[in-house]
Amino acid sequence: MGAGLQGENKGTFVANGKRVAIVGAGPSGMAQLRAFETAARAGADIPEIVCFEKQADWGGQWNFTWRTGLDEYGEPVHSSMYRNLWSNGPKEALEFADYTFDEHFGRAVSSYPPRPVLWDYIAGRLKKTNVRDFIRFQTVVRWTEYDAEREIFTVSVEHLPTGETTTEEFDHVVVASGHFTFPNVPQFPGIETFPGLIVHAHDFRGAEGLQGQDILVVGSSYSAEDIGSQAFKMGARSVTASYRSAPMGYDWPDGFEERPTIERIDGNTVHFADGTSKHIDAVILCTGYLHKYSFLPDDLALTSPNNVYPDGLYRGVVWQDNPRLAYLGAQDQWFTFNMFDAQAWYVRDLILGRAELPSEAERSASIAEWRKRFEEISSDAEEIRFQADYVRDLLRQTDYPEFDLDRVVEIFLAWKRDKKADIMGYRDRVYRSVMTGTLAARHHTPWLEELDDSIERYLAEVPARTPQLAERRAAA
Amino acid sequence: MGAGLQGENKGTFVANGKRVAIVGAGPSGMAQLRAFETAARAGADIPEIVCFEKQADWGGQWNFTWRTGLDEYGEPVHSSMYRNLWSNGPKEALEFADYTFDEHFGRAVSSYPPRPVLWDYIAGRLKKTNVRDFIRFQTVVRWTEYDAEREIFTVSVEHLPTGETTTEEFDHVVVASGHFTFPNVPQFPGIETFPGLIVHAHDFRGAEGLQGQDILVVGSSYSAEDIGSQAFKMGARSVTASYRSAPMGYDWPDGFEERPTIERIDGNTVHFADGTSKHIDAVILCTGYLHKYSFLPDDLALTSPNNVYPDGLYRGVVWQDNPRLAYLGAQDQWFTFNMFDAQAWYVRDLILGRAELPSEAERSASIAEWRKRFEEISSDAEEIRFQADYVRDLLRQTDYPEFDLDRVVEIFLAWKRDKKADIMGYRDRVYRSVMTGTLAARHHTPWLEELDDSIERYLAEVPARTPQLAERRAAA
Repeated sequence: MGAGLQGENKGTFVANGKRVAIVGAGPSGMAQLRAFETAARAGADIPEIVCFEKQADWGGQWNFTWRTGLDEYGEPVHSSMYRNLWSNGPKEALEFADYTFDEHFGRAVSSYPPRPVLWDYIAGRLKKTNVRDFIRFQTVVRWTEYDAEREIFTVSVEHLPTGETTTEEFDHVVVASGHFTFPNVPQFPGIETFPGLIVHAHDFRGAEGLQGQDILVVGSSYSAEDIGSQAFKMGARSVTASYRSAPMGYDWPDGFEERPTIERIDGNTVHFADGTSKHIDAVILCTGYLHKYSFLPDDLALTSPNNVYPDGLYRGVVWQDNPRLAYLGAQDQWFTFNMFDAQAWYVRDLILGRAELPSEAERSASIAEWRKRFEEISSDAEEIRFQADYVRDLLRQTDYPEFDLDRVVEIFLAWKRDKKADIMGYRDRVYRSVMTGTLAARHHTPWLEELDDSIERYLAEVPARTPQLAERRAAA
Repeated sequence: MGAGLQGENKGTFVANGKRVAIVGAGPSGMAQLRAFETAARAGADIPEIVCFEKQADWGGQWNFTWRTGLDEYGEPVHSSMYRNLWSNGPKEALEFADYTFDEHFGRAVSSYPPRPVLWDYIAGRLKKTNVRDFIRFQTVVRWTEYDAEREIFTVSVEHLPTGETTTEEFDHVVVASGHFTFPNVPQFPGIETFPGLIVHAHDFRGAEGLQGQDILVVGSSYSAEDIGSQAFKMGARSVTASYRSAPMGYDWPDGFEERPTIERIDGNTVHFADGTSKHIDAVILCTGYLHKYSFLPDDLALTSPNNVYPDGLYRGVVWQDNPRLAYLGAQDQWFTFNMFDAQAWYVRDLILGRAELPSEAERSASIAEWRKRFEEISSDAEEIRFQADYVRDLLRQTDYPEFDLDRVVEIFLAWKRDKKADIMGYRDRVYRSVMTGTLAARHHTPWLEELDDSIERYLAEVPARTPQLAERRAAA
């Protein structure tokens, strides 16, 4: 993949005179790099690309760090991931159409890989190309201005290790900085009196330290579900999940329960809206994330709740008030990696002039039509189908390899059934690749028993049984 | 104080055509506001002042929050303070010359007040004036540019609750955003394997949750000393302090010990440079702070280790490369509130044209001379005297009320002796005000026994004995 490019155009893309800034080298930014690289490999004249990445490596969320809060340069830590995070959806739903799991691993692997395995996969697609040369690592975008007359963005950035600041001009800006980094942290009455650990899911790094404790996870979405499950797996004495509107409703194991929202906190005692109270040792706030783009003035910055069709983005990517600005991955996500690809390919084609941008009125009508359909969604299944249709619409505009989106929808629905049936066991199920037809391999160790999330152990054929497990269960 | 101003000039300062931006409404920014307010009260024609403050209230570090990492708007939390933080130096060393503790409290109080009491004091000086009207709260400075030809700063800010961004022009910028907010977080081999709490002092909010645990504080400066002491006070099973160059060397109580630097971490086991190892439940990194000014381009941003004479600042405040930019409180601090006053009065007088700015060469010679003296400092006592001389030099330039700096030096030296003699008891000592001659009152409860840091309890004449204390000690 792309090995030819490195030989032919080592270290540089052929520029067509334009300059494009990509903000972020996570899954979305990497998709945008891949989209341009694919075009260049096929002989296209492409713009000069500069990708600004705050971290020292690519992968965005998938680039785990033990750090919390602020990083070694005082910048907000990007990744919200933790030790022992495994994919919470089947890999068959996020597979790239132009770089399959079969191609990457050379054999079938399980459907729910741990974090380092998925990082390896998304990096693998780019490792044989030269796109890494176009990323300025440890460089954070500070401020952006748009000159409407010249149709030019002025972007000021800081190289964190040196503190050097520079200002450059670009014709297009692609925002791929993600929206699962800045925690939404609500205030609860009395929370300032709680003497134990209070941490948002963003700063949660692992549940090993919660052994023997009474844990409260606040929220009812993926973070609450997964961090609650992690705490149970790692030997918490009890796990309580507090929901605002509706419980998650899974068949939780003994010691795991759901309660309504927090009314107030008084020291270590948490009072819930149903009048009950409970002793709690640690609170994990699984209360979602904010769209935040502090490097953009307000007329360029997306503001939206986390949903599958944020307002103001034509085809979910083009900033309606200034189409030279695009956002990738700004939606709430059922589809992920292959949706980012569909978006990146489309944005690339707009920039290259391969796709035509409709008039402002047509774009506005399109947004209104999709928003109307979005507002009528009344179930997860409908939302999944909605997002499949959204991806399908994008794919039709580009030359990204086609794939059967209806079969991906079926995988999502099967995944939801499997979770409902066994919340602590669903990650042991396997699904069939839409891209290759390969059936995933069964993992050597059930998720609930597996305490080592390394890629080495994941790929080992006959691993030793996790040694700490028996002790840990006995102690709990 | 200043009540007259509110009547005469309600809501506005008389502008002399210039505009001054102050970044931050903590102790330094509040001193700058006070300096201008004092001049206006005396009839001076002063510039239009706009103070940008990220938080919802003034007080900077003294404005405590239970939040850690990022705040409700995704901005780095400013305050590094924790519950039960009491002043670690005598209040007699930081007293304002123009607003004494006697004036504020109407009676003698103790020498080491808890956080809310000092917050009350610094706010009290401004509460009777109208300077609060000049602060734009919840407004963060995003980016600053300087136009050398027009001699104008262009400052872009965001109002956090609305996301509104605006750009304004200023003749002068005073940076008062502090340098004890962005944590310096080193990496230790194996730290990513540590399963317990790892938190920098910046995100430490109280030691109550550390009861019965083995705590490691990393560092040997104020944070390590005080957070280690808090952990001991609140019933930690053991406290270990790890130093890089030299131990703190206090006569620690049983269960509190010092060890050399961390060699590596392996799960819950920490290995030290002397070959010893220890089981640790929680690590508090008391490893200092970074100078960080992400709203400034590199030619305006101070970079310095934390010391008493950062390079590049004439008289410790004027940015040598652009004297229209000033920094307040950028030094490491023995003197605090009254030093900020001395700086703010001098910066005010430069802006008002009352003080004359020497030529670039003269400023350069002055910096070199002070830096030479700074580099010759070989003890804390010398450093205290150095800073007293620095403050004296500033005071001579302005009309800030004179006070006896040599007596303040004596208080600092007495404080150091008292700490050395009794690290867990020094806060029960009292000193005499340099400003009023008043001897501080003895506090009703010894610091080691006091678990309630509220101003209500502090000011209560005959308080109840802290109820939890006996239980707490019995349980520990």
